[in-house]
Amino acid sequence: MATKFTKNAVGRMIPTEINGKPVIPFQGVGKYKPTGRRYAPPLVSCADYPADGDKRVANLKTALVEAGLKDGMTISTHHHFRNGDLIANQIFEIASELGVKDLIWFPSASFPCHEPIIEYLKDGTIHHIEGSMNGPLGRFASQGKMRGTGVLRSHGGRYQAVQDGDVVIDIAVIAAPTADPFGNANGLSGPSACGLLGFALADSQYAHKVIVVSDNVVPFPCIPWQIQGNYVDYVVEVEQVGIPEKIISGTTRITKSPDRLFLAELTAKFCDVTGIIHDGFSFQAGAGGTSLAIGNYFGEIMREKGIKARFARGGSNKYLVDMLEEGLVEYILDGQTFDLDGVRSMRENPRHVDTSPFTSYNYHEKGNFASILDVVILGATEVDVNFNANVVTHSDGYLLHGIGGWQNCLAGKNVILPIPLFRNRIPIIRDEVTTICGPGELIDVIVTERGIAINPRRTDLLEAVKGSDLPIKTIEELKAEAERICGKPALVETGEKVIAAIKWVDGTVIDVVREVKE
Amino acid sequence: MATKFTKNAVGRMIPTEINGKPVIPFQGVGKYKPTGRRYAPPLVSCADYPADGDKRVANLKTALVEAGLKDGMTISTHHHFRNGDLIANQIFEIASELGVKDLIWFPSASFPCHEPIIEYLKDGTIHHIEGSMNGPLGRFASQGKMRGTGVLRSHGGRYQAVQDGDVVIDIAVIAAPTADPFGNANGLSGPSACGLLGFALADSQYAHKVIVVSDNVVPFPCIPWQIQGNYVDYVVEVEQVGIPEKIISGTTRITKSPDRLFLAELTAKFCDVTGIIHDGFSFQAGAGGTSLAIGNYFGEIMREKGIKARFARGGSNKYLVDMLEEGLVEYILDGQTFDLDGVRSMRENPRHVDTSPFTSYNYHEKGNFASILDVVILGATEVDVNFNANVVTHSDGYLLHGIGGWQNCLAGKNVILPIPLFRNRIPIIRDEVTTICGPGELIDVIVTERGIAINPRRTDLLEAVKGSDLPIKTIEELKAEAERICGKPALVETGEKVIAAIKWVDGTVIDVVREVKE
Repeated sequence: MATKFTKNAVGRMIPTEINGKPVIPFQGVGKYKPTGRRYAPPLVSCADYPADGDKRVANLKTALVEAGLKDGMTISTHHHFRNGDLIANQIFEIASELGVKDLIWFPSASFPCHEPIIEYLKDGTIHHIEGSMNGPLGRFASQGKMRGTGVLRSHGGRYQAVQDGDVVIDIAVIAAPTADPFGNANGLSGPSACGLLGFALADSQYAHKVIVVSDNVVPFPCIPWQIQGNYVDYVVEVEQVGIPEKIISGTTRITKSPDRLFLAELTAKFCDVTGIIHDGFSFQAGAGGTSLAIGNYFGEIMREKGIKARFARGGSNKYLVDMLEEGLVEYILDGQTFDLDGVRSMRENPRHVDTSPFTSYNYHEKGNFASILDVVILGATEVDVNFNANVVTHSDGYLLHGIGGWQNCLAGKNVILPIPLFRNRIPIIRDEVTTICGPGELIDVIVTERGIAINPRRTDLLEAVKGSDLPIKTIEELKAEAERICGKPALVETGEKVIAAIKWVDGTVIDVVREVKE
Repeated sequence: MATKFTKNAVGRMIPTEINGKPVIPFQGVGKYKPTGRRYAPPLVSCADYPADGDKRVANLKTALVEAGLKDGMTISTHHHFRNGDLIANQIFEIASELGVKDLIWFPSASFPCHEPIIEYLKDGTIHHIEGSMNGPLGRFASQGKMRGTGVLRSHGGRYQAVQDGDVVIDIAVIAAPTADPFGNANGLSGPSACGLLGFALADSQYAHKVIVVSDNVVPFPCIPWQIQGNYVDYVVEVEQVGIPEKIISGTTRITKSPDRLFLAELTAKFCDVTGIIHDGFSFQAGAGGTSLAIGNYFGEIMREKGIKARFARGGSNKYLVDMLEEGLVEYILDGQTFDLDGVRSMRENPRHVDTSPFTSYNYHEKGNFASILDVVILGATEVDVNFNANVVTHSDGYLLHGIGGWQNCLAGKNVILPIPLFRNRIPIIRDEVTTICGPGELIDVIVTERGIAINPRRTDLLEAVKGSDLPIKTIEELKAEAERICGKPALVETGEKVIAAIKWVDGTVIDVVREVKE
């Protein structure tokens, strides 16, 4: 059966159907308006739950069987333990043993530790993955080996999809650092403390069956209850839910690379010159080495001017916590803690607040936090001359990264991408990006080590830099410079098969990823 | 048109229809199982809300008009300000001015300060009230003067009704002590601090339009966000939302009456003798003078035994906060703060946790906190020989009280009602209660100044008191004693007209209240 395609608002050809479901092509920012109603799970009664509040069952297998695990179900998990997760693989090992087929795995993100999942994709236990596929799983999908089509969503888009009923979760498995027998859970303490459990919020609220798994079960009440036990069906106690040293990981040290430090300093200077940094401003800080350095430069500027930020959003870490404790930042609105200082601060400091994709990012709601931010610093694998950007594929076509909160953050008032002009002698600024994850109209500034390009739509910023010594260039100039050094990049050759769809924050499809010809 | 009636599981005649909607008669505890799905509000998009997060409008009238206020709508408010509320009356004054008719007022409770609402019931602005009608409004309804039929629900039943779609809220008005322009709100600070906003939770989640009104608007973010701005449409800044001295009120001092102190001491002694008080136990404490005294006696017993309670639930006050700070109680799970010590403690102490009717009481969920409690101390206006109890009407037939969390708390492991044997020479224990609010099978112990009656179903408790010096009697003996002193009470004469329905926690109707013949 030939797949039909239609062109969306950013000019990409989108299949009319993915995994047997109709697709709404991207229609432009803020254009698509949902007409339905929130997803409504079946009503339940306390009469069917233990009156003493003790929902513990013997093990994960029992919980899955009692939850009614069967062919074709959608099973969700969460990436709070990042590359130290020990639970997701077990679920599908159990499902495989039980002979269950054609499951849809709906993780908030997958990591290299989930490589064993490939086995269950091969043996038919899992039909396809909806969620980011970092590393090995992305490579497997890119090779055209996954039966169904991957669906990638931003953190906010994942909440939206669950809330809107685009994805109906049959069974959610929430691995939690601390829980009580009723199912209240948090990520603040226990041997696998990860800070918060916000990525599991939608799942707890909307999944038909919810299983909480923990290696630190405390007597009721588990305080605070980041996940509310009133949504939970079963509690499973296990020896270990995560590998602590892999939970708190990632690039949580400030870069020492002179190139990246220069990028960071230039970005901070741009924010200073343009007045983006002002008393009471807000910023979104990432966890990469460059982002951390930018936060540090922001701190220096604030100290010098005697001003402070009302709040910072994003993954927390030692550096951001230091700014909070110094009083440079009044509040951290945290989506994901990246080190133990972040966990400690969230546990102890009422000004270090846990957020969720609902409060921060969900687009089908009455506003969210993302658009309130004065400045957002993000990365990209590629940017094109229309400021469209890519975060999921490399220039060789491989799908190796998830979207995270990246698309959602594009709603910020000033979106800045500090990126090197080229990586491994491949230019980052191109005529067209391999995969469009974010439309150029939302991306305001590209900062490279050889100059800053401002989106022509932002006449106010162009005005603000006039007379400054900032190295302002056009994006075409930057592209030309990269090509002069590295040569014009070859276009990647892809097959016909669509291996993944990239959803926009409103549930429409902004682009697809095709099979790579090896 | 003649109303049809049917007998429910506690033998009360229930109309088959109330306010034009079909009625499900009470079927017994845990018997009725809901078959539908959660209520699903229409989806919305961030594209239709201000990107800068500022949802402020000029005034309450503007907000109501923009929210689409029109004939027949259901408007909800909350009783966090108790008898000091300044907002609810304004809503209907505005509606009356605008000529809007036939509204349903859906407060979480009404108080004597809402007496002006009678005017809007008379002029057609309001059709009827669904919610408790303490004092003047109850008297007005009891006289048969309200057009529609009042519907009384417990706090948990109110959440259930909204969640299940039994009540669809068109516009929720949430008066908040502190809020930000995005609509995040809490009750912890500001001139009208009331502690928490849990009663407005369901409304924020499910109402089609949500208006937050505050006299203390702070820059985003308002932390903590007990109400999440993502659910809020409009924010209105006003001079004053409540009268502080009337917000923190009620009987928040320990009784000095020797009779009541005796009741309290006897209740505590019963809990001690029966082993209900043990290390790690939990109790629900009320705010009345007798309840406070019981808490004090509990404290004495715990100190003496060197044990502590894992948690206490219920309205907080100075006495409970003292126990928390002394370490006698590990956590307070608080549904409503009754004094400024409660507010301060909730603001400052992470072990003093705000709860909501969702976490504590909703019956159509995967368990709630109420059934986990070891002991619950409650009041009643009347009890019958089958242990059925009444909390809404007096023996003269007048509907003068709401249900509050009373019905929900009956789920506790041991439910004790310390009540005087008679009030104003009217016996409290009767052949039949005027209105059944709670079925006798859930009420375990009646403690009076002249003896303790244990429900014969509780053979374990009857066993536990054997050999003790507790004055154990049968409930018939207590009734006989009261009647010997006061005479047999006359039956109240009521008219035919049903003026209010009493819902059980599962949405079925357990009893109705009839017009009083004056």
